[in-house]
Order: sequence, then C-alpha cells, then structure tokens
Amino acid sequence: MIIILKENANKNDYDSLLGMLSEKGVKVSGINGVNHNILGLVGDTSKLDIELINAQPVVERVQRVQEPYKACNRQFHPEDTIVDVCGRKIGGEHIQIIAGPCSVENEDQIIETAEAVKKSGATMLRGGAFKPRTSPYAFQGLHGEGIRLLLAAKKATGLPIVTEIMAAEHLDLFADVDIIQVGARNMQNFELLKQLGRSNKPILLKRGLANTMEEFLMSAEYIMAGGNNNVMLCERGIRTFETYTRNTLDIAAVPLLHQRSHLPIVVDPSHATGLTSLVEPLSLASIVAGANALIIEVHNNPAKALSDGAQSLTPKQFDDVMNKLKPQIEFSGKILG
Amino acid sequence: MIIILKENANKNDYDSLLGMLSEKGVKVSGINGVNHNILGLVGDTSKLDIELINAQPVVERVQRVQEPYKACNRQFHPEDTIVDVCGRKIGGEHIQIIAGPCSVENEDQIIETAEAVKKSGATMLRGGAFKPRTSPYAFQGLHGEGIRLLLAAKKATGLPIVTEIMAAEHLDLFADVDIIQVGARNMQNFELLKQLGRSNKPILLKRGLANTMEEFLMSAEYIMAGGNNNVMLCERGIRTFETYTRNTLDIAAVPLLHQRSHLPIVVDPSHATGLTSLVEPLSLASIVAGANALIIEVHNNPAKALSDGAQSLTPKQFDDVMNKLKPQIEFSGKILG
Amino acid sequence: MIIILKENANKNDYDSLLGMLSEKGVKVSGINGVNHNILGLVGDTSKLDIELINAQPVVERVQRVQEPYKACNRQFHPEDTIVDVCGRKIGGEHIQIIAGPCSVENEDQIIETAEAVKKSGATMLRGGAFKPRTSPYAFQGLHGEGIRLLLAAKKATGLPIVTEIMAAEHLDLFADVDIIQVGARNMQNFELLKQLGRSNKPILLKRGLANTMEEFLMSAEYIMAGGNNNVMLCERGIRTFETYTRNTLDIAAVPLLHQRSHLPIVVDPSHATGLTSLVEPLSLASIVAGANALIIEVHNNPAKALSDGAQSLTPKQFDDVMNKLKPQIEFSGKILG
Amino acid sequence: MIIILKENANKNDYDSLLGMLSEKGVKVSGINGVNHNILGLVGDTSKLDIELINAQPVVERVQRVQEPYKACNRQFHPEDTIVDVCGRKIGGEHIQIIAGPCSVENEDQIIETAEAVKKSGATMLRGGAFKPRTSPYAFQGLHGEGIRLLLAAKKATGLPIVTEIMAAEHLDLFADVDIIQVGARNMQNFELLKQLGRSNKPILLKRGLANTMEEFLMSAEYIMAGGNNNVMLCERGIRTFETYTRNTLDIAAVPLLHQRSHLPIVVDPSHATGLTSLVEPLSLASIVAGANALIIEVHNNPAKALSDGAQSLTPKQFDDVMNKLKPQIEFSGKILG
Repeated sequence: MIIILKENANKNDYDSLLGMLSEKGVKVSGINGVNHNILGLVGDTSKLDIELINAQPVVERVQRVQEPYKACNRQFHPEDTIVDVCGRKIGGEHIQIIAGPCSVENEDQIIETAEAVKKSGATMLRGGAFKPRTSPYAFQGLHGEGIRLLLAAKKATGLPIVTEIMAAEHLDLFADVDIIQVGARNMQNFELLKQLGRSNKPILLKRGLANTMEEFLMSAEYIMAGGNNNVMLCERGIRTFETYTRNTLDIAAVPLLHQRSHLPIVVDPSHATGLTSLVEPLSLASIVAGANALIIEVHNNPAKALSDGAQSLTPKQFDDVMNKLKPQIEFSGKILG
Repeated sequence: MIIILKENANKNDYDSLLGMLSEKGVKVSGINGVNHNILGLVGDTSKLDIELINAQPVVERVQRVQEPYKACNRQFHPEDTIVDVCGRKIGGEHIQIIAGPCSVENEDQIIETAEAVKKSGATMLRGGAFKPRTSPYAFQGLHGEGIRLLLAAKKATGLPIVTEIMAAEHLDLFADVDIIQVGARNMQNFELLKQLGRSNKPILLKRGLANTMEEFLMSAEYIMAGGNNNVMLCERGIRTFETYTRNTLDIAAVPLLHQRSHLPIVVDPSHATGLTSLVEPLSLASIVAGANALIIEVHNNPAKALSDGAQSLTPKQFDDVMNKLKPQIEFSGKILG
Repeated sequence: MIIILKENANKNDYDSLLGMLSEKGVKVSGINGVNHNILGLVGDTSKLDIELINAQPVVERVQRVQEPYKACNRQFHPEDTIVDVCGRKIGGEHIQIIAGPCSVENEDQIIETAEAVKKSGATMLRGGAFKPRTSPYAFQGLHGEGIRLLLAAKKATGLPIVTEIMAAEHLDLFADVDIIQVGARNMQNFELLKQLGRSNKPILLKRGLANTMEEFLMSAEYIMAGGNNNVMLCERGIRTFETYTRNTLDIAAVPLLHQRSHLPIVVDPSHATGLTSLVEPLSLASIVAGANALIIEVHNNPAKALSDGAQSLTPKQFDDVMNKLKPQIEFSGKILG
Repeated sequence: MIIILKENANKNDYDSLLGMLSEKGVKVSGINGVNHNILGLVGDTSKLDIELINAQPVVERVQRVQEPYKACNRQFHPEDTIVDVCGRKIGGEHIQIIAGPCSVENEDQIIETAEAVKKSGATMLRGGAFKPRTSPYAFQGLHGEGIRLLLAAKKATGLPIVTEIMAAEHLDLFADVDIIQVGARNMQNFELLKQLGRSNKPILLKRGLANTMEEFLMSAEYIMAGGNNNVMLCERGIRTFETYTRNTLDIAAVPLLHQRSHLPIVVDPSHATGLTSLVEPLSLASIVAGANALIIEVHNNPAKALSDGAQSLTPKQFDDVMNKLKPQIEFSGKILG
C-alpha cells in the first residue's frame, strides 16, 4: 500500500498516522518527493482499512498495490477451480451448456423445453421460479411451485437444474436445486451472499449491471469467506450508453477474470444484448475467449412466454446454435458436458 | 402503446396478434406506412405485457406512450406528497437536513455527533447499523446494538432517526426507527421492497448506481403497490466513467422527478462525490434545484471513523455548511424543519 | 415516423403541425388514444427534420420507425461491400490482419517491424504519423516524415499501409497512403468526414469512445454522402465505468453492425483493453463473431516505444497470436489475405 | 511518480529501467514490499513518458502523484483567471449570461432574438454558424454568412458574440468573433486546439460527451501550451445510461474544476438535458455551485427553428428564467455583467 501525503503536512497529524500504522504491525518506508512525501507500507496490509487511512488529515490519497480479494485470487490458488454438479464439471476443459426458459410457467412448458434442449445437446436446465421484474405488475414467477416443476423436468431428462434465489428466507425451497443463481440485481445483496456462503451449494453469481470486475470478485469473496468455494462467475452484459442492445457484453472480462481468479466463468449471451439473432455469434465468441459454460434462454413457444419472450430462442433456433457450437468446442480442444 | 410490425409480416401471425390484443380488451387502429405497418392501441394498456407483445413473430418493436408507473405518477396525483416523520414534514415548503455518521460505532460517538449536528441546525439523525460493504473483511456495522444506540441518541436530542435496512428478515429490529433507508445496492431488491410495502414506515429509497429514473420510480411503485405511500426518492450520484469523483450527482433528476412524481426528493451530497470539499456547493445546488431534504455524513472524529471517514464532515465543517444553507433556504422561500 | 401529441393540444397548434407536414408531402393517419393522440406519417419521411417536429407546441414526442442512415444501410444494399486495397479484399470471406506500431519512430523500427509482422502472416501494415495524444507534452508523431517511412516499409515488404489523419489540411500528405484511418476522437469531426467523402481512398473509421452504433453509422453516412463508398467500420472499445481495462470491447457490435450495414467490420483488440495479454482471446472472439479484419499493435521493441508500448505485442508475441488465429480463420471458413 | 515492479523481476530488465530513469535526471528511492518492490521517483517527473515506463518488462504499473496539467493548474497559478471580452469579465465575481439560438438562420431571427435576450438581461449573444450535426442530411449552418449576421446583431445590440468553430481552416472567418467556441465533439480535435493556441482569442472549450475532467483540463492545456491563456471551461452534460434526459449535467464538475484550475467555468443548462423545463433549476444550481457564466439556447420562434427547437426557450421563457436568476446572483454576492 502506498500513501501519498499532502503538501505541508502537519507534524502532529503525521506522527499520529505513523503511530496508527505501527499499531497495525506494518513497517513504513518513506520517499521525499518534490511536492509530496510518499510512504510505502511493508508487511501484511490486507487488514488495513483503506478508508480509515484516507480519512487521516495528512493523507492526500492511498493506492493499493495488492488486490483486495484473497480466496478467489489466482495468485494464492493457481489451479482452476472445477465445480462438480451432479457429476458434470464446470471449469477446466469441460464446457457446460445451460439452457431453458426465463420463467417456469407450467409443467408442459418446462418439460417440453427441457427435452428439446437436451436433444440439441444442452447439459443443464435453467428456469426462473422467482423473477426479479422491474414492474410490480408483471408476472413474478411461480415460486415454490416453479421449483417443483423444475425438479419434475430434472426427473424427466436427468438435466441438473439452475434457478435464481431472490431472498435468503427462501433458501429452504432450494434444497434440491443443483445450482443456485444470484441475479445481477442482487450481486451486492450482501446479506444474501453471506447466507449462501454458509451453504455448500454451487452458486452461479451474475455480475451486476454496473459493477466493476473488482467488485464482482469481492462479491464472490463474500460467499467464499463463509466457506463455500463452489462459486461460478457469470458475465451477462453491463450497462452502457448504447441503445441498440439491452446491455453490452464485456467479452474481455472472460480472459481477464481467468487471469485474476481461479473460479469458472459462465457467459449469458441472451441477457447480454436481449436479441436472439446475436446469441450464436456471442456464444461462439465466448467459447473461444475461454468461457467454461454458457447459459442460454430457450422457450418452447416464445410468443406465449410470460417473460423475456423476445430474447428467447425457439428449440429450432437453439438447435442451430448448438450445431455451430459443438464443432467449435471440439476445435478449441474442449469437451462438451 | 404503438406496435411496429415487421415488413412482409405473415398473415397468420398477424391474425394471432390481433386475436391476442382483442382478448385483452384493447382496440386497435392501423396505419399503413411505406415499409412498415403501425398499430396503435386504444384503451387501458397498463395490463398489457410489453415483453409478450415484443415476442410475437410479426412484431418489429413496441413503444409505450403512457408511463409504466401509476401510484407514484404526478399525472394521477397532482399534489405533492408530504411525509410526516414525528411531526416533521418532508415535501412541500419544508426542508429537512438529515445528518450523522456513516456507521454507528459506540454510544459516545453517536450521541456526541447527534448533539453537534442538532446544534448546527440538523433536523434528523442518520447512522448506519447494517452496513453494505464491498469487502467481507470490512466493518459490517453493530446491527441491533447500532439501532439501540440510535434510539438513545434520539432520546438525548429529540432528532428522528434514519437507518438502512439490508434484508427483510431484520424488519422487526426497525420497529422504532423513524425512517427506513433502502440503499442504492438494494434499489432492485424486489423482495425487500415488497415487505416494506406492507409496513407503514416512511421509506427513504436511494437510486441505484446505474438505474434510470424510470427504474427508480418503478421501485417506488413496488413499495406503494403494497399500500405504503410514505416513500421518499433519494438521488445519491450515479456511476459514470469520471474518476475524480466517486459518483456523478445527477442534479437534473431533482426537478425532473418532481415533474414526473408527487413524492418528496432527497439528495445525498456526501455519497454523490465522496469529497467533503464538495458538500457545501452541492447542498446549495440541490436546494435551489428543488430538493426537499439533504442527507449529509458528519462524524465527530472522521480520522477514527470505521467507515467513510474521508467523505464525512467534522462538526465544525458541517456548521459552516449550515451557515451557508440556512440563508439560502430562507431566500428560496423554504422553511428549515 | 410516429408523432405523439400532448394531451389537450391546442387546435391552432394542431392545424399548424398538419399544415407543415402536408407541405413536406407526407400523408398523416391518426389514432385517438385515451390520453394521447398519435399520428402516423406515411410517405418518404427521410427529409423530415425530427427536431423541428419535436419543437412544435402540440408534440409530446416523435419516434422514428425507419433508420436515419441510407447509404450504409443493408436494407437498401443487401450485398456485403468488399473494399479493395491494392488487390487485397476487406469484406466477405477475406480476413486481413493489419499489424504494426502505434507510432512510426524511425526507419529501422518501422521496416524491422513490418518485416516481422509480414513473416508471421500480417497482410497490411499500420503505423501512426500523426498521433492524437491526451497531453500536449507527449510525442506527437513524425508527420510527413512518418508517412515517408511507412512508404519505405511498404516498398520493402509489399504490405499496404494504414495511417491516421487528424485534420483535413493534411490530406495532400496522404496521397500514397492505402487506407486512411479516422481515429475515435475524430469520429464526429464532421468537417474532416466531409473532406474524406470527396476522396476515393478507403477509409477505416473508428467508433468514438462514447458513440452509439447509430451515431457510428451516421458518421459513415457522412463519408458516403460525399460519394466515397470505401468505408470500413472499426470497433475499438467503448468507454464504461470498468477500470481493469482501458476500454470495453463491444463484441456484439460486430454481428449487429453486419445486420444493419453492408460495410466491412474491423476490430482493434489492442486499444480495446490496453492489455497485451488479452489480444489473443479478443482476436479469436472477433473472428468468430464475424470481423473482416483485425488491427493489432506490434512493436519491434515495446520497451523503447514512443507511445502505447504497454499495449504493443513483441514480434514473438504477435507470431504466437497468428499461430492461433490462422487455424481458427480456416476453421471458420474464411481466407487470410 | 511511483513505479510498482513485477514480482520476480529480471535483474537485467531492472538495471535497464534504472539506467533509463537516471538518464532522465530523476532520483530513485526504493521500498521492498512483501510481494512487490516499489520505486518512488524524486525530481521533475513531468517530462517522463508514463507509457514508456509502463512498457518496461519489469514494470507492473505506474501511478502518477502529480497532476499532468501545468498551465491550467491552480497549484501553480492560485488566482482566478478573468477573461476580458470587450470589457466584460468572465471569472471572479462577474456572471455573464450568454443567450441566443442554436443556429443563426436569417437576419430577422438573429437580431430579433438578440434584442429580446438583451432586454431580459443577457450580456452576450450565442449563435451557431457552423453546426456539427449527427446527420449529413440535416441543416449544417450558414457558415460565413452566419458570422456576418452575428456581427450585424452585435452592431444592433452591443452584445459580444460567441460562435463555434469546427475546423482550423475556417479560422480566418472568425477574426471579428469575440469568443470562439470548441464544441464537445471537438474537445480532443488536437490539431484544432493547437491552432487556437496560436491565436489570442477567448476560447470557450466544451467538455466532451465522455471525457473525464482530467482529459478536459489536458485539452485546455493544449490551447494554453500554444500561448493562449484566454480559456474558459464549459460543462455541458456528459453521456450516461439515463434516457429521460439527453445528457447528465455533472454539477460537481463546477466546484471541482475550480479547485483544480484557475480558469473560469461556464455551464450550458440547455444541452445538459435537452429539456426546456429544466433550464431554470439547472441555471440556479449552476450559479450557486460557482459557475462564472451560463450559455442558454433561446430562439424567437422555437417551432420554426432549424435545429434544437425542442430545447430552446422562447424569449418569454428566457425572461422568466432571468427574473429568477437575477436575485439569486445578487444574493450569492455576484455581479451580473
């Protein structure tokens, strides 16, 4: 950690800063510049509160040298984490394709969709039971009944299921769910993250609409700090000024998060832009950029979908996408499933 | 609502769209353009699901004419809502100044700060008991004990108290709190909003880091849809590319939200930029732009604050700000308190 | 074009709007909604000034149905444009790899780099003679001498050359340049675009840091409106809140611009993030997403580069990237060169 | 300047970095951390190229301690710069109100508007002769004739005139213009900035749509580096994700730029949001936040304006705004004119 002092710093304030740092057990080296003095801190600075140092009267600003995340940091855990979900692996050489509707609507819809996506090569099933909707007047999901229907679809197809949680008090309903998804709007719902840290379920954590990669990793850290290491990072598009697409897929996040962290990376090419015609090129791009899994919206009848119909593929469209993805996955030296 | 059809729309798909609209009880008028046909929907379109229409095969895109929010919409409720908090009014001609530390740390700190801000003219006390921190390793607040200390400070000073909730399961602890704050990171924590809609507590709802004004109003709508009309909208800076300030205060949101909604508007000039030296000019600007209240971070000893010390004013600095604000409030024809 | 009228519109103002529209030769159809009247305009609305209509007292807002760009619009020109540069084709099945240093610095540097990139498979040479630098105190390029050195490198290697123009008054110096680049900061330097429209040189137009795809296409339209159809669109990363990367590569722009426009698409994976370690994955992703060319920074000695050294590949690193790119290009059914 | 070295840095590379720094005449102090070594540079680092240092193989990253701008930096020039325009002062205690149409359209329009805004209290006249329009098919301005009409309006009213330049080759036409405006889209048109630096005209430099304050100051530095110190900084709204307003006014930029720079600050409340109803509150907010001038769009007949009609005030609306502004200016201890 580097501390840049104000010009003409007051001697008492300076001594008080040094005292505080010494109490914390870090060693201080100083450099006298022309206009500024600079202090470099040597030792374990991970327990220093950067805000507290920033608040000292002599401090102009503080710059971190080390990253603030530990458990998810590749520096301290060089090998890829591989999350096991009912025997299927996310991470390393394996590619999982998670497909299914935005919302679970009824038994026919979810089973028909599950069977269709399985036939095309999907390896897991997604479907929303609790739906975060911008409007309180929009369909909010089937809740517990939705999870029951997902489990029926799992029974029918053998596909592990992924579904979103919106509040810690619903956690009991997720006992048989295979992967619990935390949506973009809840990426910094820290109370929820803490509770998930106490479970041992695989967690698919989506990046918030306007969250930096560092904040994203810190949210993963919240879960891991509780003891749950089964965390997957999902890039799903960030919010920018562009209006032709709903969000902007940050494709560079895929290789960069792989450099910084050992956790598997998932990409959601459906929410990334909200346009079905872009799912195929963005899926291919994500695979070659290093994604370990894709999560794609597919509905057996998008024109009747209760949510997100316009960004859902039909089973036929999904089949076309899979026919492009399979040879690319193989060409890239990865294994589907 | 306006529906723009694709060129060369299929006749069956078109009839299926018309049937669907007719079922919903809306009347359809058509316009034949050169490249596109346009349908205008007449009647109550508020129950139509825009996503479902967008998902129809013949639809190119859908454009709303009416705003999607009702309860908070000034069009249907022209008079200003005035929220009463222990006899103090937020809205209309009244200006409330809410001041206090980021976190409640101990009894001396909160009571000393409360007395200081009251002396300078603050009319309510803020202080965090549950703290949403980016890092799991940072101080997370005193929780129930923090609320107990806030109540002690209220007893000592008579100032109503404002504090943040992070999860619905903590609601019981907030029984004696005067205003419950929903933080920026929870603006779209819809489960929490629904629970707060069932209470009758005044709610101070902060705008999310990257949420549009429309989404902000829709979140207020979530609370009001549950029956709780005591909602205040708080602009606290949005996330942009600028790096000199932590956030960018969207000052235009103040008059624009007043045009669109009857709810009171609060501004947080402390979080807006993270720089104490900007609190005074931004407070003045917010008042003249029409804010009904300000919420300002003040700490009796920022250099020892457990959070946000660098953006907290000292009691002396806050007193200086108040000495500028009081005459401006009077000049603007408003009443402090 | 759709015009939504204000509630309670004044009759005189309404008649004045109808008169104005009638003068422009468009036919008007009306729909009476509950709160709003809607007018649909039939006929050629491309000459209507949307701002002028917006400024009429009865108008609440105007929504375009047709896209505002014509010459670059795929709707009116379904076949891909293929730009010919010294016999090499950009567009269609061909992939060009443009490589070279940020700045031309001296004869040895540019010729050595040109020979190295050619050996690895690059098909064109880039190099800056006029450099847009944030600081007036930074190296500004060799100007005319830089172009002379590029031509020497072309002579030595046969690679066509690409270099950036910063002002129309320098155009004479670009007489022998093969592709003229317009940088991101000049994407809306309309006077420059108009001048380039009068030339017949291939133009590589970079997207502005914060420009929408629609604005990007409108800037291409400026060049084409002058008669020059040899325009290539270059996605080079947009500005967002993310700080780990210099910019955010908008990968979805590649397939989406291909849908909207017939012009070739180039991607700059070097400026996109500013990180050399991401050039390989982003290059692969761009190719599978449909890019027709890549422009990559390579320097024979990045540690001595006068600009952008940190984002330049060494010849060895570039060779490694090409060894990954070549099989992918072939696998994707495209032709290098 | 602080240099953070990579872990396990190569000894030869390290020596080569030290040699390079020594050649530049800076002294180096080192700190050995646990994982990283840190070098602090002492001496005049303003001539060091941060990119070059970043490109050295041993360097992890470089952090500047000093600001990169000198001529516009308040640190080296503590007194406010006051720009004199025909005897009227911009800066210090004086407030100038610059009003007029987006485009100069004809003699009657500009003279009628000039007389109206003067009567209401405007102290300078704005009007566009060269118009940067997104579409090549939109009205582009009257060019030289527009400037002639502005000069006629100046003769009729005595108001100094402000008009935008779009290319250095038009500079001769601006010989009698009082303030030359550089538009947001040209803020980093460095060739234009250099040419303006060689003139001695007052320059009103608008902030780019997506430029940081630091980049904004660096563009002012370009002009000042050429010898022209008559620069004014104009905040006119930045581009964000918000859609209710055209841009987001960064009100915090006003006091923050005053802290960092001695140059006068102008605010454009018209372009800031594109909504006439927000001009009054944003004008008041800008004055109390410390703006030295406002530039406001007024048209004698917005419904017939050839550009920006929807964001132009009528003379009556402008008069209402001035009636609110005048007492506030006086109350704030400033002088109009």
